[in-house]
Parts: sequence; structure tokens; C-alpha cells
Amino acid sequence: MTDALSILVVHGPNLNLLGTREPEVYGSVTLEEIDAALEAAGKEAGCQIECCQSNHEGVLIDRIQEARSWASGILINPAGLTHSSVALRDALLATELPVVEVHLSNVFAREAFRHHSFVSGIAVGVISGFGPQSYRLGLDALLGHLNAELADAD
Amino acid sequence: MTDALSILVVHGPNLNLLGTREPEVYGSVTLEEIDAALEAAGKEAGCQIECCQSNHEGVLIDRIQEARSWASGILINPAGLTHSSVALRDALLATELPVVEVHLSNVFAREAFRHHSFVSGIAVGVISGFGPQSYRLGLDALLGHLNAELADAD
Amino acid sequence: MTDALSILVVHGPNLNLLGTREPEVYGSVTLEEIDAALEAAGKEAGCQIECCQSNHEGVLIDRIQEARSWASGILINPAGLTHSSVALRDALLATELPVVEVHLSNVFAREAFRHHSFVSGIAVGVISGFGPQSYRLGLDALLGHLNAELADAD
Amino acid sequence: MTDALSILVVHGPNLNLLGTREPEVYGSVTLEEIDAALEAAGKEAGCQIECCQSNHEGVLIDRIQEARSWASGILINPAGLTHSSVALRDALLATELPVVEVHLSNVFAREAFRHHSFVSGIAVGVISGFGPQSYRLGLDALLGHLNAELADAD
Amino acid sequence: MTDALSILVVHGPNLNLLGTREPEVYGSVTLEEIDAALEAAGKEAGCQIECCQSNHEGVLIDRIQEARSWASGILINPAGLTHSSVALRDALLATELPVVEVHLSNVFAREAFRHHSFVSGIAVGVISGFGPQSYRLGLDALLGHLNAELADAD
Amino acid sequence: MTDALSILVVHGPNLNLLGTREPEVYGSVTLEEIDAALEAAGKEAGCQIECCQSNHEGVLIDRIQEARSWASGILINPAGLTHSSVALRDALLATELPVVEVHLSNVFAREAFRHHSFVSGIAVGVISGFGPQSYRLGLDALLGHLNAELADAD
Amino acid sequence: MTDALSILVVHGPNLNLLGTREPEVYGSVTLEEIDAALEAAGKEAGCQIECCQSNHEGVLIDRIQEARSWASGILINPAGLTHSSVALRDALLATELPVVEVHLSNVFAREAFRHHSFVSGIAVGVISGFGPQSYRLGLDALLGHLNAELADAD
Amino acid sequence: MTDALSILVVHGPNLNLLGTREPEVYGSVTLEEIDAALEAAGKEAGCQIECCQSNHEGVLIDRIQEARSWASGILINPAGLTHSSVALRDALLATELPVVEVHLSNVFAREAFRHHSFVSGIAVGVISGFGPQSYRLGLDALLGHLNAELADAD
Amino acid sequence: MTDALSILVVHGPNLNLLGTREPEVYGSVTLEEIDAALEAAGKEAGCQIECCQSNHEGVLIDRIQEARSWASGILINPAGLTHSSVALRDALLATELPVVEVHLSNVFAREAFRHHSFVSGIAVGVISGFGPQSYRLGLDALLGHLNAELADAD
Amino acid sequence: MTDALSILVVHGPNLNLLGTREPEVYGSVTLEEIDAALEAAGKEAGCQIECCQSNHEGVLIDRIQEARSWASGILINPAGLTHSSVALRDALLATELPVVEVHLSNVFAREAFRHHSFVSGIAVGVISGFGPQSYRLGLDALLGHLNAELADAD
Amino acid sequence: MTDALSILVVHGPNLNLLGTREPEVYGSVTLEEIDAALEAAGKEAGCQIECCQSNHEGVLIDRIQEARSWASGILINPAGLTHSSVALRDALLATELPVVEVHLSNVFAREAFRHHSFVSGIAVGVISGFGPQSYRLGLDALLGHLNAELADAD
Amino acid sequence: MTDALSILVVHGPNLNLLGTREPEVYGSVTLEEIDAALEAAGKEAGCQIECCQSNHEGVLIDRIQEARSWASGILINPAGLTHSSVALRDALLATELPVVEVHLSNVFAREAFRHHSFVSGIAVGVISGFGPQSYRLGLDALLGHLNAELADAD
Repeated sequence: MTDALSILVVHGPNLNLLGTREPEVYGSVTLEEIDAALEAAGKEAGCQIECCQSNHEGVLIDRIQEARSWASGILINPAGLTHSSVALRDALLATELPVVEVHLSNVFAREAFRHHSFVSGIAVGVISGFGPQSYRLGLDALLGHLNAELADAD
Repeated sequence: MTDALSILVVHGPNLNLLGTREPEVYGSVTLEEIDAALEAAGKEAGCQIECCQSNHEGVLIDRIQEARSWASGILINPAGLTHSSVALRDALLATELPVVEVHLSNVFAREAFRHHSFVSGIAVGVISGFGPQSYRLGLDALLGHLNAELADAD
Repeated sequence: MTDALSILVVHGPNLNLLGTREPEVYGSVTLEEIDAALEAAGKEAGCQIECCQSNHEGVLIDRIQEARSWASGILINPAGLTHSSVALRDALLATELPVVEVHLSNVFAREAFRHHSFVSGIAVGVISGFGPQSYRLGLDALLGHLNAELADAD
Repeated sequence: MTDALSILVVHGPNLNLLGTREPEVYGSVTLEEIDAALEAAGKEAGCQIECCQSNHEGVLIDRIQEARSWASGILINPAGLTHSSVALRDALLATELPVVEVHLSNVFAREAFRHHSFVSGIAVGVISGFGPQSYRLGLDALLGHLNAELADAD
Repeated sequence: MTDALSILVVHGPNLNLLGTREPEVYGSVTLEEIDAALEAAGKEAGCQIECCQSNHEGVLIDRIQEARSWASGILINPAGLTHSSVALRDALLATELPVVEVHLSNVFAREAFRHHSFVSGIAVGVISGFGPQSYRLGLDALLGHLNAELADAD
Repeated sequence: MTDALSILVVHGPNLNLLGTREPEVYGSVTLEEIDAALEAAGKEAGCQIECCQSNHEGVLIDRIQEARSWASGILINPAGLTHSSVALRDALLATELPVVEVHLSNVFAREAFRHHSFVSGIAVGVISGFGPQSYRLGLDALLGHLNAELADAD
Repeated sequence: MTDALSILVVHGPNLNLLGTREPEVYGSVTLEEIDAALEAAGKEAGCQIECCQSNHEGVLIDRIQEARSWASGILINPAGLTHSSVALRDALLATELPVVEVHLSNVFAREAFRHHSFVSGIAVGVISGFGPQSYRLGLDALLGHLNAELADAD
Repeated sequence: MTDALSILVVHGPNLNLLGTREPEVYGSVTLEEIDAALEAAGKEAGCQIECCQSNHEGVLIDRIQEARSWASGILINPAGLTHSSVALRDALLATELPVVEVHLSNVFAREAFRHHSFVSGIAVGVISGFGPQSYRLGLDALLGHLNAELADAD
Repeated sequence: MTDALSILVVHGPNLNLLGTREPEVYGSVTLEEIDAALEAAGKEAGCQIECCQSNHEGVLIDRIQEARSWASGILINPAGLTHSSVALRDALLATELPVVEVHLSNVFAREAFRHHSFVSGIAVGVISGFGPQSYRLGLDALLGHLNAELADAD
Repeated sequence: MTDALSILVVHGPNLNLLGTREPEVYGSVTLEEIDAALEAAGKEAGCQIECCQSNHEGVLIDRIQEARSWASGILINPAGLTHSSVALRDALLATELPVVEVHLSNVFAREAFRHHSFVSGIAVGVISGFGPQSYRLGLDALLGHLNAELADAD
Repeated sequence: MTDALSILVVHGPNLNLLGTREPEVYGSVTLEEIDAALEAAGKEAGCQIECCQSNHEGVLIDRIQEARSWASGILINPAGLTHSSVALRDALLATELPVVEVHLSNVFAREAFRHHSFVSGIAVGVISGFGPQSYRLGLDALLGHLNAELADAD
Repeated sequence: MTDALSILVVHGPNLNLLGTREPEVYGSVTLEEIDAALEAAGKEAGCQIECCQSNHEGVLIDRIQEARSWASGILINPAGLTHSSVALRDALLATELPVVEVHLSNVFAREAFRHHSFVSGIAVGVISGFGPQSYRLGLDALLGHLNAELADAD
């Protein structure tokens, strides 16, 4: 049972454009649709989902810090910040919450500078390459992880 | 609808020991249990699942090659071969089938030599770090990908 | 004829100080003067110029995203973000607009970490080292590129 | 005599959490307490201290730029931005003020990516590893440097 | 005169698929046809040809070791093992026989990891990029080398 | 006023083929047309232009050395020598004249070995990616630089 | 007293050729003689020795896995697999048995690619360069380690 | 049928010394003899062969450029220029002709700086290590490639 | 209260020249003056200070080893040994005493080989760039650390 | 028979502390006990053993040089000098005596800078990781090597 | 006695400008004066000196090849070709003559790309940093080497 | 006129063995003979020569420091310390005397780790590869440098 769980979903820079840019590459699903689907899935699992997106690293860090007071875990697609932001890594680390990292595209099949992530080393796990489905898989993975932790704590 | 789909699940070297070695790290789930769960999930989704494990790279390549004649996609945990086997990569490439790569542990939080995978660059996507759940997420991801392809083809 | 063209000029962090810091290095021309000169040049060429500067990566990304709806091209001096911001690169890429990258100083004659740019690989071209003149050359280059595209489209 | 001196103290991302996260690692001293102690020490030395913290790189750059008009020197703990922000380095450089860089933890005993700082190369000096005491040592070092400069100028 | 010569032809992993996978890339010639052509060419040159293929590195090493008792030289396309197998290199070295390395595709025009070969450093020479013709050129090269050795020995 | 100025334009190896090879990539403008346009632009600016092209590094160095006696500056597209010729760099350095480096294509969007230039570090500035227009922009940049120097000298 | 001890001796690819290839380099001792000597030494020490060699990585991994049920420790010369096989490393790790790594030649005085071993990092220790004697030293070292462990456990 | 084919054979710096320097390494065959043999082989195959050698990079580039008007393909041993000349690569590329690269010695068994070739990445294929025979194999390979192209075009 | 504390101050090679070489760079303060100031400061803090300098690595190691029997902590400026001496690191480690590393100049603003220290990774913290003041800051830092340890132990 | 043999045992910096520092890591055996055991073992084998330790590189080099006049071989644990001292390597080389290198801990399982040894490349062999037993194994290995040389010389 | 000796002196690109460019750096001695001084010194030593300079790599290679028929040794300042020309290295190697490499400036105190020389590895020795005196020292060194060879041959 | 000049000659570790070890490599000249020859040459040039050798880095640094009070320049063969000693570099730098670095063998034709020198970057120049003659050439070079300085000072 997961009704006590609540999850912060974080979308990094440029993900607000989803569904409107290069639809032949990224598909036509918008970020609003992804968020709605995650919220619906959360509801079904008895879990509260709160989503945020920003192009500002600082705004994302503020939101992540606040999550310390209410969230059970964080689902994050750091987008372009994945490869450069030590501050984001430090913010996630400071929450002491389990983090699942997701990517729409398979970053390992793209430019070499996208193969390194400052988040992966502190995440529970990473999911990369399945388009909008990556988020849903990430939510399932995070809920699975949290429920296993709860079970262990019993 | 996925009833026409059939999937080869490939487990690399040492995964036969699952559940019996270092249970405090890898958990107590055995490979047989993982395979049974995948088969059950496949059945539910109207999809045939065939699993194989070997400590022999050559046996894995043989099985992957044979999959060309019957499988719709491949779900693979290449284990130790992930980081060294170009031959495995070439075998997967030769099937021209969609491949999803999974790992039990979060390879990005382990030794530096585990951060590079010869499979990731040719996979649809990668899932890493969720224990036995990685396989289930990988199956969902692969089915999602195959169904999207079918839908596109319609 | 360029009367249908409109261009976003983007100045990265610290460029607001131009003309007031280290005038012996960067000269005494201010950013306002550069913007005024670009606007005048645009007017002459029948092209609308809109300029923005920010020390906030997120603000710059917001402005670049908005340009998708009105601009024909982007002239950018990413300043310190040149060498570190994948998010800025992604924002520029998402606009699908032609980008010209300019630098006041010759970055190739400075510290090694300034030799790599995350923007150059997705730009039409790069102009580096001519002080405030770099902007004017960049505008000419961008207009030339846009007019050639228009001519091709005819 | 230092009564004419005034110093900007800059705290980078996530330092607002000090004293509340991982107290067994970072101790239980809060940022407010650190700031109060620095202000008290400044008062005693006849020197004005102004402190700021932000998770936003852009906000930090804005504050650093403003310091050009009033401060004698800058004491900065760039936190996660230490290792990635060329823009912060450029802002500090543009002030033409002496800069002292401090870190709570000994960054050289942590992950390899924390061994490089974009600030160190332009700082008067660096102090790393002494917890909240690093700030007090940094203030002493900066005041010592400024007073030596004043003495030289006499 | 070459009638006393006998040559082992070794095909590495996945080459059994030749002619059936990606014919637009690799052509429609099968491995059986290549072997038949080599055998015919050998017959004409009064030289015995024995061919083997395996996806198992160990099987290839066994065959190479056995060749010590009967072969005059080895013609090998190590395929994916080219770039990773020190054991294959050691097996070839242990035969003390001349080795010619061939590749169907021009490995130097492919991914960077295919530019290094553990075999090249101990081979007489390397032929890369001419499709099935690479084998025939390799056979000619090996026979030329062996006959020159015989001539020297006279 | 620029009437006292005279400029050497240097075209490196293979640029004589311009307009005749791969017109879909490099356009249909020939080197003769580029030179004529530069000479016309020079005339208009009261500045003498002298152009040379060679496939021989030595010939280019000879011409550059001679320019010490008559030229005010050098506009150079070193082509393939950009990335390998220290001797060319030394020749340009020895003239003690201002150098502007231009490239037809955006070298930063091509193979990695084209990202480093032995000329850039000693040039006033670099212009890359605008096709034949790169030369015209380079001439404007060089004239701007020379006139600014003249103005400073007044 | 070591009578309860039993040890698996593993010889990697190509070691079956020992004594028959390049005797001027590797000496004339055969693998059979080495195994016999180890067994005799084991007998004397009241310890059971079981030896295996294979050119198949998979066979070696199978044997190592089986050793979990009966062996007290593993003495291994991974030969060519030393430098490339993560799967072998994982198999050894999974046994949770102490491992001693030996090499006939001094790998540190050979090609650079032989200086890195995937086994060394998880071994008790490494012995390299003493020809067949390396095995005997390795057996002594392993018995010493096991007896010290037994003593500690008392 | 190859009677319409004509081939430029290019020998790089120092190859004019062949047969006269270090005969124990390079053999006693002279470049004249190699050229004569290639011409004879060409005649037999109904193909015109034209050979050139120079120690001047510029002369080689000139000859390669001229080949655009008459040759069907280029057989080149770039010798020392292999590893340093981007200009030679660009010249070959500009001809849009198929190129086969040959080397007398096995460059992969020599100094590390000889392992990289600027030509290989744009060649049809590479042949290395067979002494004067490398040229003959290269001619066969090039004719095979050209005839296959002709056959495809039919 | 620090009256039970005693500290070894270690000066590495060439520091005996302080105040006599390049006074415009290193200032005119001599090592004797620094030692006297440290001793006075120690006296005031109720702490015994013992200083040593040597150009001999071995002498420094001997002194550090002896400190195990009497010192509470070590303040060290390893000078040129900073970047090369693993033996010095091992000696410091063997004392199991807290170590503070200081440098007169800001080593991060000097040659690249001075950016790495073998001592930093095992020190409590590092202070670099404040001239003779670095020592005084280092003493304060070390006393602060030791007193905090004492307080914790209460 | 080994009665004519005499061996210099060299212990590098900090090994004098053995048994007294970190006994839980390095055990409680002292260097005196190790030396006594080696001397006893030497006596039994009819071989003279002479031991020395110093924290001074120069002293060790002096001792090694003197060994040219009396020793048959050298057994050395270079400790911290292993990774930095070319002078020690040169001294060992100059003796033209066989050298066996030993380490108490498994250096390959420690920090990366301990993986490279300047001694290994000129040693007969290396033994690493077996605590005090490493010395005894090293003595056996060296005696084995020397006796084999004597046997060869007969 | 050196009367039978004759030496080719080779000056690389841009050295013809000596004495006329940057005299404050390179001094006011011209190449003619250097050549005259070498010839005079040669005369005194009973040795014939022939000097050549070219900006063309090919011309230098031609001259070096010709030296095979008459010279006893080569004294070369490869200038900018030092760092890039494998062809020059190969030409020198092909002469089988002793080569001494000289540089006017100390290349090790200049840009990093000047620290590697393709000539040094095949030279008898290298002299760098003594201005025109480098040539005279080089001549003495070469004559010393040649006379020692003659003496050995007696 | 050089009669006021006095020079310290420094020989690094192991050079005391010269003439007695590996005479086929290093020749039969002893260090005493080299020193005598340098002293004789100095006498002739009216210059005092003082020589020292030590295997102890610290002793060499002491001697170099003392030279500040009496020497005009330093001639040094740092031997094995060349590649590892920053302290030696710092000592030489602190003397503010001109330094000439010499090596008996051509270090650029030896192991890669011998290609880098910590001394070269601060030396007037480097002479490498001419055996004992290197010292004499180095003395001439240093005297030439000192006399030129004297001449400039007049």
C-alpha cells in the first residue's frame, strides 16, 4: 500500500517545449499530458504527485530543497543540467530522499558529453530512452523502491 | 494489443547465481523467480517470453542470432560482458531487433570501468539500478516500444 | 530584401558591465551603445532587432524559447555560459532557428577552458576577437545567411 | 586599522540548508549563525560585513557585480558552482576586488570532480576543510590582505 | 611453388550471418560462398585451405592452437574480438605462424573503439574495407609472404 | 580613412577547387570570384588587396614573409594546414602583422581534429562558417582593426 | 594445520600450451607438471588441490562458480583474460573466496595493455614474473592467508 | 571488364629511396620496379596506370587534384604524410574518387604515432604490411571496387 | 583550553631561504620570524610549538615520525615535496595526527603541476595563498580543530 | 646449492614503523621480526641476508650501489618511493643484479597513484598483498631465480 | 683528425628571417652570419660544411636525401617542422647518418606543443636554448661524435 | 673575458658510478675524469669550477642554495631527479642564477617518463645525448651565456 507516499517530479530546462518542438524526434505528447498521466497514475497508486518545470537551475534547487519537508522521493529529468550541474546534485543529495533519474532520449546514443551525468552517481537508478514512457517507468521504479523500503522497515 | 509479440530475455555471466550470492546486496530473488515473473507478465500482455542465461559469451551470441527468426525484441542484462564485448554488440546489431538493456545495480554508482557499455549505444534505452524490478520495467519499456511501432505501422 | 526579418540578440552574464570594467581590455563602448548600433543597422537593413542581457541562465533560456514565435534568427554572445551550459545549447537547438555565435575577445588566445564552446557545434558560424565589431560582423553574417535561405526558398 | 573596509560574503547553492542537513557531517551550526559571527567579527575589526546566499547563479552574479560600488573585498564559498561556473569566475574578475575562496569540507579529499575550481585561479587564496571556522579564517585572511594593501599604499 | 602450404581461415563471431543480415551494407555473399571461393583459390595455388567460424572465443582459440601441428599460416577476421581479446592475440602468437588480419568493412571509418586491434601488432599485415574481396586479397598476401619465406630459406 | 592600407589574402591547399567540387556543400562561387569581390571591396575602402593560393605550404610561407615589406595585415584561410602547420604559425608571427583567420565551413561542427587551429592563438580573431561571406566579413574585421589601430596611433 | 583446506587452481586461455611453445621464453615445464607439483605440495600441506584449464571464458566461470560449494580459496592465472574480462572478475567476486593472482611473466615489464588487471583489485595479492615458480609461491601465499584467517577465527 | 579504367598511383615522401635504403628492412625492390609491375598489371587488366612520387606535399596535392579530370580511382601510399597531413586528406576527398591506402610495413606494429592515419577514414580500404606486394594487392582491391561499382551501375 | 596541546611545524625544501630570495614575490619576512611568531602565538594559546625545516625529505619524515610520541597535530608546508612525495604522505598518515597543509603562494594560480598535492587528500584542510599569514591561519585552524576534538571527547 | 648467495633486503620510508602503527591494518609484526625471520630463512638456505631501512632516498641508493660489490640479488619494498623515484630505479638498474619487488598491501586495490611502480619494469618479478609473508615469498622467489641462473650457468 | 668529414647543415622554415625579425628576442645575428661562422669553424677543423635553408618541407627532404652520397652527418634546426613532420623524420632516418638537432630558443620553456619533437627520438642528441651559439655547440657535438666513431672504427 | 666567473657543477644520483657500470653503454670515462676535464677547461677560460655529486636530493639542494653566494651559473645533470623533483627545480629557481641542463644519454630516445624534465622549463638551455661531451658543451654554453650577459651589461 502506497497511500502515504508523495513524490516530486522535476523537469529541467527546455522540457516545457515538449510536444511542440521537433515532434518527429520527441513525439507530440506535451509536458502537461505527461504530468496529467503521472498524477493519474499516482492517484491510482494512492500516491500524491507534484510536478514542476523550470529553465532556471536556481528555481529547481529551491523546489528540491522544499521537498525535504513533504516528499517521499524525487523523479527527475535534469535535461541539459544533467551534464553540468554540481549544485543540482548537491541539492538532491541534501534532501536525503531516494532519486530516480529519467531521460526521454537514450543519452548514451547521443553526443559524448551527454554520457556523463552528475545525478546518476547519487540516484537509486536511471531510465533512459523510452520517450514519455520513461517517466511512467520511473514512477513505477520509484514507487517500487519506496514500497520495498517500507516493507523492510516493517 | 500485443498478442503477436515474442521476446528473448538474455541474462549474462554470473546471473545464474542470483539470490544465492551476497543476498544483502542483490536480494534473495533467484533468476528462476525473475524468469517466472517475466513469463507471467508476458502471458498477461499476450506476449511470449523466452529466457536464457549462460556464462559463455558464445552461447549468448548463438541465442541472440537465432532470435532473428522468431523474436520481436530483446531484453538483455549483459552483466560483465556489458563493458567489454564488441561481439555481443555486433550480434544484437545483426538481429535488427529493438534491444532494451537492464542492470540490477546502478552501474553509474559503481567502479568507473562499469560506466561504459558497448550495448547502450545501440539500445532503445537503458534501465539501471532497480534490482529484479529492472527486468519488469525493461519488459514494460520494450512492450511499449513495440506497440508504438505497431501503432505507427498501422 | 530583408524587411521581413527579425533578430534576437542575446548577451550572456557580465556583459552588462561592458565599457565600465577593464576599459583598457574591453574598450569603453557600453552594451547600450552596442545595442543601439545593432538596432540602427537593423533598421537600415529593414530588419527588427530585439536585444536582451541577463546574468541568469534561466532568463536567457526563457527569452530564447519565446523567440521561436517571432524571430528569424539569433545572434548570441553566451559569455561565460559558452563553456558550461548544455541547457543553453538545447534551448537554441529547440528554436530550430539559425544561430550566430560571437565573442568580444579571441577566446582561442585565452585559457584552455575557453577553447571549447557548447554552442559552436550547432551554430551557423562563429566570430571571435573583434571587440564590439564582432556583433556588427555577426549581424551581417546572420542577415547574409537568412537572405541566402530566402533566396534559396524562392 | 580597518574601519574603512567593507566585505561581501557570498554563499553558493544549498548552503542555506547548513545545520539542518546531515548534521553529523556538516555540524549543527546554521548559516544565520555563521553570518552573525562574521558580522560580529567584522564589527570588532571596524569592518562592515554584508552576507548573501542564493541557489541562483544569476542572483549571485548580480550581487557580486553590485559589490563593485561599495565593497573592499569578497569572501565566497561558491559551493557546487565552484566546479562548473565560468560566469561566476568572470563576475568576480570583473569586480577587480580581492577574492578569498572558502569551503566547509576539504574538497581535495572528496570526488575527483571537486578538485578543480574555476575560482581558485583568480583568488588571493583558498581555505578548505575547517567547517564553519573556514569562514572566520577566510575573513581574517581577507582583512590581512586588505590591510597589507593599505599599508603598501601608504 | 606453394603445394606444400596449408592455411587456416578463422572467422570470428557473427560472421556466420554474412549475406543474410543487412545485405545493403555487407552484400549478399554468404560465408559458405567465401569459404568455397577461398578453397578454390587455394586449390589453384596448390595450397590446402581449412575454414572455421565460431561465436565462441574459446572454440576459435582451440582451433588456432591445433593449427600449430599442420598449418603454414593463418588468415583471420577476428570480427568483434579484434578490439577486446588479448587471449586471441596470445593464441595467435603461440602458434608462431604468420598471421594476416582481414576485415570486411573499413574499420578505420567506423566507431573509434574499432580503430584499435589487439591482432594487428602481431600480424604480418592488415587488409580492411574491401568486403568479401578482403579475404581473397588476404589469401594472396599470405601466400606471397609464405612463398617469399620459402624462397629466403632456399 | 584606409587609403594607406594594403592586405595580403592567403588561401591554403585545395581552395583553388572552390566552386568546382561538391557545389552542394561549398556553393558554386569560385576562388576567382571571391578574390575579385575582395579586390572590389578593397578598392571601395581605399585599400589594396593582393591574393594568393597554393597547395604548397612553403609557397604560402614565402608569400607571407614577403608581406612584411608591404602589407598592413593578413587575411588567411589556412584550410587543411590550420590543424597541422606550426611553420605557418611561425611565419605569420614573424611578420608581426595583424592576422584574421577565416573558414568557409564551421570547423567546430566538423571532425574533432578540425577543432584545433595553430593559427587562432596568434590571430586578432577568427570567423568560421559563413561560406564565401566569411572572407568579406574577415576583410571588414581586419580593416576595422587596422583603422582602430591607426586611430589609436593618432 | 591446513588439512581442512581445498583449493581451485584456474589456468586461463593458452596455458595448455605451456612447455611446448617458445620454450626459450616460457621454459620447458608443462602445465601437467605444474599441476602435479601443486598437488604434491598440497598433499604435503594436508590440502586438496583441484586444477582446471580452458580456453573458454565460460568454462572457467562455470568452474569458479562451482568452487563456491567446496573450495577454501582460488589460485588463478587468468592469462589473456586478465586484461579484458569483467565477467571473470564478477565470477571470482561472487564466490566470496580469497583469490591469489599469479602470472608466469612479469606483466609490468611487457606491453602497456598488460599492466592493468581486472582481477588484481579484488585479489588478496598478486605474484608476477617467476615462471612456474609463481604458482608455487601463490599456493604458499594462499595457504598462509587461509591459515591466518583460521587462526584469527579461533 | 576494366578497359575504361585509369588509376593514379601516388607515392609519398622518401619512397623514391626504396630499394636503396635499409634493404634488409624494405627489401631490394626499387620504386621503378614497383611502378613497372603496376603498369604491366594494369595493361593486363585493360587499365591505364599513371604513377608519381614527390617529397613535396604540394606537388602530391597538385597531382591528386588533376586526377579529377581523368582518373577512375587513386592508389596511395602517403608515407610520412599519412599521420600529419589534413591537406592531403582534403585533396583526396575533393576528387570524389575511390581511394585505396597502402603501406609497405605494418604501421600498426610500429611507433604509436603511426597508428593514426588521416587518410584511412576517407578510403575505401587499407592494406598494410606486405612490402611491395601491398601495392599489387591495393591495385587488385581498387580494380575490384571499381568493377563492382560499374556492375552496380549497369 | 589548549594548554595540553603541542604542535609540530614542518617547513619543506627551500623555505629556509624565505625573506632572502625574491623579496618582491615572497616578502621580506624570514623563516625565523615566522617561527618566532608561531611560537609566540602558541604561548598565548597555551600550546607548545616546535618548528623544523629541511631540504632533505628523509629528515622531514624522521621528524614527522618522532612527532607521534609528543605532538597533538602537524602544521606543514611541504613546498616542492607537495607534488611528488608519496613517502611524506605515508609518514603523515602513519602519525594518525591531524594535519593542516599551508602554502605561501596560491598554488592553484601557478603551473599546472602545482595543482595536485599528495598531502591534501589526508589533511584536515588546506590554506593557500596568504604569504606568511598562511601559517598563522593554519595554526588557528589546527588549534580550532584540536579543541573541537577535545570538546567532542568530553 | 645456494651457500654462495648473499642478498640485500631494502625497506623504504616509513617501514621502520611496522608493527607499531595501525596494527589492525598492517598487523603487529615489527620490521625487526621480519628481518630476523629473513635472516633465519637465509641461514637455512645457506645464504647471507643483509637488511637496511631508511626514510632517506639517498641512503637507500648508497646502500644499493654498495651491494654491487657483494650481493647476488636485491629484495626491495620501496614503499612510498615505488611510485615516484626514478633515481631508485636507476640505482637498481646500475647494480645489474636481479631485483624482486615486494609490497605488504595489495597496491592494486589501493589509490590509483599506487598502481604504477618505477621498479616493476626492471624487476624479475613482483609480489604484492600478503603482509609480512610477502617478504618470505619474495626471498623464496629470488633464491629460486638465482639458483636457476646458477643451474643454467653450469 | 677530422679532415675527411663533411656536414650538411639544415635550417627549417622561417629561419631565413633570423636577425631581421624580433631582434630583441632572437638577437641580431643573421642566418648568413651563422652559416659563415659554421663554415669557418668547419675549415679550422678540416671539415667541409654545406648549409641550406628552405620554407618548403619537400626541398629540405630532397637535400637531406642527397646528403646520403656525400655527408658524414647532419646538423638540423627543423624549426616549425620539428613538431609536425613525420616525413622529415623518415628522410633523416633513411640517410642512416648521425643527426644532431638544435634550437635557438629553449623549446621546453615555450608552448606545450613545442615540447614534442619528431626528430629527437632518432637524433644522437639535442641542443636547445643558446641562440646562434646552439649551432656552434651542435657542430662541436657532431664532430665529437663522428671522431669518436672513427676512433672506434680504428 | 671570463676570469670573474665561477660555476657550480651538479651531478645527480648514481652518476658517481660513471665509468664503472655498463661501460658499453655509458663509456669508460669516470666522473672524476669529467670533473678534472671541466676544471681544466675552466682554468683555461679563467673561470673557477666547483663540482659536487650526491645521491641525496637534500644534499644537492643544500649545495645549490649555497651557490647563491659565490657562483655565476650552474651546470647540472639532475639524472633521475630530472623527472620527479619539484624541490630541485625550486632550489635552482631560488638562486636566480642561469642554469644549463645536461644529460649523457639522449633522454628523448628513452622511456616516455624520461621525456619530461622539471628543470628544462627554468633553464637557459638543454644539452642531451653526447656522453661526457655533453658536460663540456654545457660548460661552453654556460660561459657563452654569461659572457653575453656581461657584454650586455657593459
